[in-house]
Amino acid sequence: MPKWKKVEFEEIEYEPKSIKEILIEMKNISELMVDLAYSALLFNNKELAEEVKYLEVRMDTLNYDIRLIALLAARTKEDAEELTGILQVAEAAETISNAAADITKLLSVRLTHPILPGLIKKSDETIKKLTIKEGSVAHNKTIKDLRIASETGVRVLTIRRKDRWIYAPKKDELLKAGDILIGIGPEEGLARLNKLFEGKIKVL
Amino acid sequence: MPKWKKVEFEEIEYEPKSIKEILIEMKNISELMVDLAYSALLFNNKELAEEVKYLEVRMDTLNYDIRLIALLAARTKEDAEELTGILQVAEAAETISNAAADITKLLSVRLTHPILPGLIKKSDETIKKLTIKEGSVAHNKTIKDLRIASETGVRVLTIRRKDRWIYAPKKDELLKAGDILIGIGPEEGLARLNKLFEGKIKVL
Repeated sequence: MPKWKKVEFEEIEYEPKSIKEILIEMKNISELMVDLAYSALLFNNKELAEEVKYLEVRMDTLNYDIRLIALLAARTKEDAEELTGILQVAEAAETISNAAADITKLLSVRLTHPILPGLIKKSDETIKKLTIKEGSVAHNKTIKDLRIASETGVRVLTIRRKDRWIYAPKKDELLKAGDILIGIGPEEGLARLNKLFEGKIKVL
Repeated sequence: MPKWKKVEFEEIEYEPKSIKEILIEMKNISELMVDLAYSALLFNNKELAEEVKYLEVRMDTLNYDIRLIALLAARTKEDAEELTGILQVAEAAETISNAAADITKLLSVRLTHPILPGLIKKSDETIKKLTIKEGSVAHNKTIKDLRIASETGVRVLTIRRKDRWIYAPKKDELLKAGDILIGIGPEEGLARLNKLFEGKIKVL
C-alpha cells in the first residue's frame, strides 16, 4: 500500500498544536504542493505525484485539527469573528491543495503520447527524490557544509524526515541518514549528489 | 478605478499565442499568486492584495484563450484526449488562483484587531512593492550588476512591466525605468533598494 494511503486509513491522532503552527504548516504545504504538482506533470514523475498525495492527506488532517481548535477556542463574538477569518484561510489552503492534487491525477491518465512533458519541459533542469543512506558522509552535515548549491547547482526544495516535512530548508539545516530530499537542478548535479547520499563518493 | 478592475472591463483581445506559452504563464501566475496572497495577509499589505486581483484577471483571460485554442485545434480523437488533459490543468490553475484571491479578501474584512499578521509574521523579513523611477541608475542594469542580493538581502519575486509580469526573474534580467518590483527581504535592505530606485543614491 502506498504511504499516503496507509496514512489516510490511520486513526487521526490529536496532536496538541497552536492555530499559529497549523496555519504556518498549511501555508507551507500549499506552496510546496503547487510547486511539486506542476513539477510532477512537467517531468512526468510519479514519485513526486505520490509525494503530493501524501501532502494532501496531511493537509486534510491539519484542516480537521484547526477546526477543532477554533471551535473550542471561541468564547466571545470577537473571538468568533477572528476565528472565522482563520478558518477561511484554512479553507483556501485546502482548495489549493486539492487543485494541486488534481493536476497530478493527469499523470495516471494514459495518453497516446504524453504531450505535457514535451510541451513545457525545461531542458536544463530536472527534479529528483533522493534518499540519504546510512554511512553517507551527508549524515549530520548541513547543506552549507556539503556545498550542495555551489558544487552541484541543486536547490533543495524540501526534506521529508519520517512523517514530517522541512519546507524550504535553510542552509544550516542538519541532514540525517534516512532523510528524503527533493532536489531541483541540472541532471549531472543531481546524479552527483545522489552518489554522495548513497555513500559512493565522499565529497562533491 | 483600480488597475485590475479597469482591465476586467476591457474587451478581451485575442492575442495569438501557443498552448505551451499559455500553460507556462498559468503555471507561473498560480505559483506567484499563492506566494503573494499569503504575503499580503501576513504583512497586512493591501498593495499586494491588489496585485493578486490583477493577476486573477490575467488568469481568467488566459483560461479563455486556452479553451478557444484547444477547441480550434482538436481534429482527431487523440488530439481531443490530449487537449482535455491540458484543459484540466488550466482548470486547476484557475482554481488555485481563485483560492489565492479568496485569501486576500480577508484583508478587506475589518477585524476587531488583525490577528493574522500578529500570529505568523516573520520578524526578520518583509515584502514591498518598489518602482524604478526615471533617472535611477537601475535603468538598463541587471539584478546581478546592481548586486541586489548580496548588498541588500532582497530577493526579487517578480517584475511587472506595464501589463506584463516577469515571473521569478533571472539575475541577468535587464531592469527598466517604470518597472514595478516585488521584493522580499530585510526592512533596511528594501529601504536601501528603494532609495536606489528613486534615484536618491547611486550605489547599494
